[in-house]
Amino acid sequence: MADLYLALLHHPVYDKNGAIVTTAVTNMDVHDIGRLARTFAVRGFYVCTPVPTLRRLVTRILRHWETGPGSVYNATRKEALATVRLAEDLDGAIADVERETGSLPRVVATSARGGPDRLSFGRLRERLAKPGRPELLVLGTGWGLAREVLARVDDLLEPIGGCGDYNHLSVRSAAAIMLDRLRNGR
Amino acid sequence: MADLYLALLHHPVYDKNGAIVTTAVTNMDVHDIGRLARTFAVRGFYVCTPVPTLRRLVTRILRHWETGPGSVYNATRKEALATVRLAEDLDGAIADVERETGSLPRVVATSARGGPDRLSFGRLRERLAKPGRPELLVLGTGWGLAREVLARVDDLLEPIGGCGDYNHLSVRSAAAIMLDRLRNGR
Repeated sequence: MADLYLALLHHPVYDKNGAIVTTAVTNMDVHDIGRLARTFAVRGFYVCTPVPTLRRLVTRILRHWETGPGSVYNATRKEALATVRLAEDLDGAIADVERETGSLPRVVATSARGGPDRLSFGRLRERLAKPGRPELLVLGTGWGLAREVLARVDDLLEPIGGCGDYNHLSVRSAAAIMLDRLRNGR
Repeated sequence: MADLYLALLHHPVYDKNGAIVTTAVTNMDVHDIGRLARTFAVRGFYVCTPVPTLRRLVTRILRHWETGPGSVYNATRKEALATVRLAEDLDGAIADVERETGSLPRVVATSARGGPDRLSFGRLRERLAKPGRPELLVLGTGWGLAREVLARVDDLLEPIGGCGDYNHLSVRSAAAIMLDRLRNGR
């Protein structure tokens, strides 16, 4: 099986007016997506932010659960947060995956917007089921990944789609659905 | 199609030591599951808590997004939170569904634990695809729904299952995966 990695980008992403911003790291994202990563055999989950103070904040959260009071309070959370890693940006995550696996990952961006040539969940699941280059799934915060990120990735994953045209899921919900589809079929 | 409803119970649920407790309402649950409900055509999402102060808190959150500053700031959130309703407990949610639809819902509890005679996602999806009694999917907070709830429901839904035996998803993640499976197959 090819290794699966996740990266959650806090920059460059859009705000609701289409301006490029840096969003704050949300504690709940780290926990929820860490638990998903542990559940669905993601080898590493990169929280990417260019803000040193926010990287320090995440380090403190991780320390709390790894060796601090949290490690005794809830061992399953410790296990989930062991998947979490820090990076300044997407390049930092890519470099770290390459260092760990010896090969450059294929970078797959996610977006709630559709478009031509989207990679289907089925096709990505097939790639993951065979030995091959690691796959790095990139999730955006705010109102989604900036065009400059989408322009440089290897693939764009198809949007999730619900029962109508409402497509405003939280990144936590989107990550849950994507990982379930990639690991449990359809 | 049969109507689908959700209920998020804050009592009676277990804490990590197996004691029955009332958990606090989490703002992020209301938002994330409200957005999921809107995406996946859930007719009503009941936040159930016996604590009047917490029901008032949710009412204030809803008002902020419905008619307050939030309604102008983010119209998609207003739309999502329009699915949210309040109830004291499961009975309150059941009664409200019956009032709205004219028939008593089938109550389907969710649990991370497996066991005999679990209702499969495929079977529940089939029930939803046909006209029939409304279905009320019950989600627990804390460490899961108390036995007294599980004992009185019509069905227990099969657990989600990941790539190993780790099964500690957040209720937000579990709701996302369940609704995607029920609406988008498998």
